[in-house]
Order: sequence, then structure tokens, then C-alpha cells
Amino acid sequence: MSKAVIAIHGGAGALSRGRLNPDAEQKYRQALSDVVSQGQKMLAQGASALDAVTEAVRLLEECPLFNAGIGSVYTRAGTHELDACVMDGATRKVGAVAGVSHIRNPVLAARKVLENSPHVLLIADGAEAFAEAQGLKRVDPACFSTPERYQQWQEARAGQQVWLDNDARAPLSEKNKFGTVGAVALDSAGNLAAATSTGGMTNKLPGRVGDSPLPGAGCYASNSSVAVSCTGTGEVFIRTLAAYDVAALVEYRQLSLQQAAQQVIMKKISDLGGSGGLIAVDRKGNVALPFNSEGMYRGVGFLGAVPQIAIYSGEDN
Amino acid sequence: MSKAVIAIHGGAGALSRGRLNPDAEQKYRQALSDVVSQGQKMLAQGASALDAVTEAVRLLEECPLFNAGIGSVYTRAGTHELDACVMDGATRKVGAVAGVSHIRNPVLAARKVLENSPHVLLIADGAEAFAEAQGLKRVDPACFSTPERYQQWQEARAGQQVWLDNDARAPLSEKNKFGTVGAVALDSAGNLAAATSTGGMTNKLPGRVGDSPLPGAGCYASNSSVAVSCTGTGEVFIRTLAAYDVAALVEYRQLSLQQAAQQVIMKKISDLGGSGGLIAVDRKGNVALPFNSEGMYRGVGFLGAVPQIAIYSGEDN
Repeated sequence: MSKAVIAIHGGAGALSRGRLNPDAEQKYRQALSDVVSQGQKMLAQGASALDAVTEAVRLLEECPLFNAGIGSVYTRAGTHELDACVMDGATRKVGAVAGVSHIRNPVLAARKVLENSPHVLLIADGAEAFAEAQGLKRVDPACFSTPERYQQWQEARAGQQVWLDNDARAPLSEKNKFGTVGAVALDSAGNLAAATSTGGMTNKLPGRVGDSPLPGAGCYASNSSVAVSCTGTGEVFIRTLAAYDVAALVEYRQLSLQQAAQQVIMKKISDLGGSGGLIAVDRKGNVALPFNSEGMYRGVGFLGAVPQIAIYSGEDN
Repeated sequence: MSKAVIAIHGGAGALSRGRLNPDAEQKYRQALSDVVSQGQKMLAQGASALDAVTEAVRLLEECPLFNAGIGSVYTRAGTHELDACVMDGATRKVGAVAGVSHIRNPVLAARKVLENSPHVLLIADGAEAFAEAQGLKRVDPACFSTPERYQQWQEARAGQQVWLDNDARAPLSEKNKFGTVGAVALDSAGNLAAATSTGGMTNKLPGRVGDSPLPGAGCYASNSSVAVSCTGTGEVFIRTLAAYDVAALVEYRQLSLQQAAQQVIMKKISDLGGSGGLIAVDRKGNVALPFNSEGMYRGVGFLGAVPQIAIYSGEDN
């Protein structure tokens, strides 16, 4: 029996005061479920883990509910700067882009870097020129904007005290949420892969890059250990090399996936004052989804099983 | 007796056919010796490891012999794009900039990110705007240009076959050299720090970022393990998280500094076809300087001792 599995996340954070709004909650659960289902379908048809995570993250980028691609937050300058990374555990090849504003699906640009360049990370204008040369259409940055994100930005600009966050738009507070999306998968050939994509932090300094596009920080995959995608206070995930640290604890200390993932989030990240979570899978099909925030949008899909979707702490998953 | 020590590198690579030119060689050795001496002097006066590595890398940036700051190579577009990172082992705070063209000393901009921002990595225009707001003067990118680098670029553009590299300008072949500079130090208070700075690869794609500015890839420091600065085929150092991997092997596998550093360069980097080296120091004052290329510009200075400078393989150091 195949142990192929896909897990996804749509960011972690504190609970919104409006969390009891069942309509909003249902919308998020359905979106997560749809993406997991698509990943399961691909894996069942023999797709590679690399293809499954790329497509799952592309779908999350397309969904305006999550802060990546369409629905990305605004920088302090009123612009959008997107980052993404994708890593193939079989080859440890990795591609990433950071600070791009004219690529609709940053994860597809990252994939092109992985496949068609000798490089790992391309930034800003150079990344956009490469993506365009690779056939990815240049888009108007306005396509990333949504009225909800614009309002959040206006509130953030006006000062933190204005953040009332009582509109029940989303189960997790958009004020305190680390908006990033990601996917990890194990395919039926036994290969691992991971992908991460983000619109960054609301009202962030232009040019700020978090952990999402950095291999070993917000994204990592190696067949000799694990595949990991992170979401949280990016700077702390960079300082701790959170994604690679899960791999190192598994490979060098022989911890189980669950122990390693827990130790990174509950000890390493927490000790430096960081908040957030990660999703991880190993070659046996074990899945771990620890977070130290009140909730994390997440979903897991084993082949032939119903997608397991969860948002809050304590939910089965 | 204090075990304070500083080690520096000025890039690694293959030997130049002109290596026997004693004047060129002496120029490089003297430059390395001067920087090590300055680091020793600072540490002897009680400076922090963080200050010592920042100043050592600033001096290497100022020296036109090395590919960082003044003397940086040209991109394919004829521009200069510089990257730097500095990390404090005591706090694991880190600052980095990537893709900057108007900051004379990228390591000072990285230090400002570390000290005066909540962020870790700033790129391109955003990094330059931040540096300027922090009082670093905006400079004309022409200040990075040297006639030697311009000629190398012209030769690289004309096609690899034109690279004759028989002019004995430098002991290591500029064609096959990984030009990056770096420093690691242990201070008398027992704190570790690391810094790395680069002008990138000759004729590189604009926007390409290598390992130098990425924490855990080309630069890492933690008082609980080691301080590391790398130089080499940047993409492989990113994929292996080379700098953090030395730390993980020391902390999780209890390898000695020498064993861990050797394993990363001779096994992990070599297995993926990478080339280059690293410098590392631990809290006991052990120093390791492994490389798998034919040479690495390097120097070590223990307090009260003469700087030990070396370029070729097999030299004592």
C-alpha cells in the first residue's frame, strides 16, 4: 500500500474574535480541502512529490483567502513583494525567488529557477526578467490586491491601535497571522518535496525578505531526512534555520519526525520569542504539524482517505 | 591566557598559471596579514568578536585584490551587485543585504540591519534605502570597478575559451576562483561571530544571489557551537546549508570542529559537485580552514602570535 501523502498550510496565528462565524470558517476549510484533494489526486495518478507541492502551492497562491499570490498583503510603500521556494528532496535541487511584483505565481518562477538555471535564488528585477524569459507572463501587480488586504494595510498604517479585528472575516486574526502558504509531500516512488510561498508581512519595509524563499529556513527537502515548510515570525525561522534543523535533528540525532518538529517549534523557535508552525513529512509517510500559535490553517491527505482539515489547536489532524 | 582568535579568507579556487610570480603572491599575503593584524589588535584591546569580524571584512572590502566591495566583479549587465551578512553568536542576531549597488561597504549595511531593524535580510532598493536612512553614504557604483575586473568581465563575455589567465595577476586563477571574503572570531569574553561579503560571480545573471548573504549557508555563528564563513560554488553551499551544517555536526553529533568542517567540505560539498572552502572557529579557540580547491587565501591570528598566512594547499596554517 502506498504511503504517499500531502500536507499543506495556509499560515498560523492567533484566533480572531470572530472565530465563531461559521460561514467564514467553512470557507477556509473548504479551500484547504480542495487543495489537499487535488494533491491526493495527483499523487494517486503517480505524480512526483515535486509536482504535487508545486501545484498545491500554486492553488493556494490563486486563492485570495491566503497571503500568497492573489491576496498578498501590502508593503509600507503600498506595493506587493512576493517570495517563493521549492525544493526537490531526490536531488536537493532548489529554486527560489524573492521580492517579485510582476509574477502571478511565484512558486512557478521558483520551479523554473530549479529546473532551467544553474542558480538557486534570484531576486527582484533579475528574477522577473528570468521568469519572463522562461515564458511566465508579466502581470500588473494590481492583480494581487484584494479589498480585504487593502483595508488591513490602511488599518496597519494608521497605527496598531486601530487594528480591531472584530469583523469575523477569518478564523485566525489577520492582525496577528503569519500569512504564508506551503506544502510538503511524499510520492509513491518514495521521493520528498517541499514548497513555500508568501506575500510577506502587512506594511513591511520594502526589500524585507523573510524565511519563506530561503532554503533551510522556510523550506527544505531531502530524501535522506524530511520535507518541511514553515510559517511564522520569519526572522526567527531564519536565525534558527528552522526547516533544515528538523532535518538535522532527524538525521544527526535520530529523533522521530514528530520529536524533531516539536523541538524546533516548541523549543528553538519559542526560546527566541518566535511564533508560528511548520508542516513536515518523512519517507515513511509520517506527518507532523506543530505550531505554538493559537491556530494554523492546515490539511493532510493520505491516499484514499478523506482530507483532514484543521484550524485550531486541539483539533485532530 | 586568552584564546581569542580571528581567521579570515579572501576566496578559494584553482591555481593560476602565474602562481610563481613572487611579487603578486607577496601582495596578497601582505594584504591578508594586515587584516589579521588589525583583527588581533582589536581583540587584544577587548573588542567584541562581532566588531572584529565586521572590521576585518570591511578592510577586505576596501582592498581591490579581493572580490567584495572595491574590486567586485561585473554582472552580465555590466553592473555590480554586492551581498553581505554578519552574525553575532552571543545573540544569534543576524543582518544581511543582497543585491546592493550603491553601498560602499555592504558589511556595514548588514551590521545596521542586525542592530537597528527587526529584520534579518533586506534586498535591492529597499536595502539601499534602509542603509541610507542609517547614515551610510550612497556611492556611485563606479567606485567598485577596477581595470582588472573589467578585463576579466570582457574576457568572460567573449566566451570561456578566451580565458587564458596567464597574466600572473594573482596566485589563484581569477577564472576559477570563488571570490568572497569572510572572517570568524572568538573574543576574550568567549563570544563568537562571523561575517561574509561578496561581489558575486563574474558575468553572473543580474539578481542571482549566492550563499554569502544567507544565514546558515555562507555565514553562521552561535555560541552554542561555532562561527563559520564560506566561499565556493554558492548554490551548493545553499543546498547543503554548509555553514549551519558545521554547527549541527558539532552540536548534534559531537564531532570536533575539525571533523565537522572537513566533513562538510570534503563530503557534503564535494558529493554535490561543489568546490570551495570555509573558515570556522569554536569557543575553545580551535580553528579549521578546509577547502577542496587547489588554494584558499587565508589567515589566522591568535593573540600575541604572528599572523599565519597561507594560499596553497599543504601550507601550514
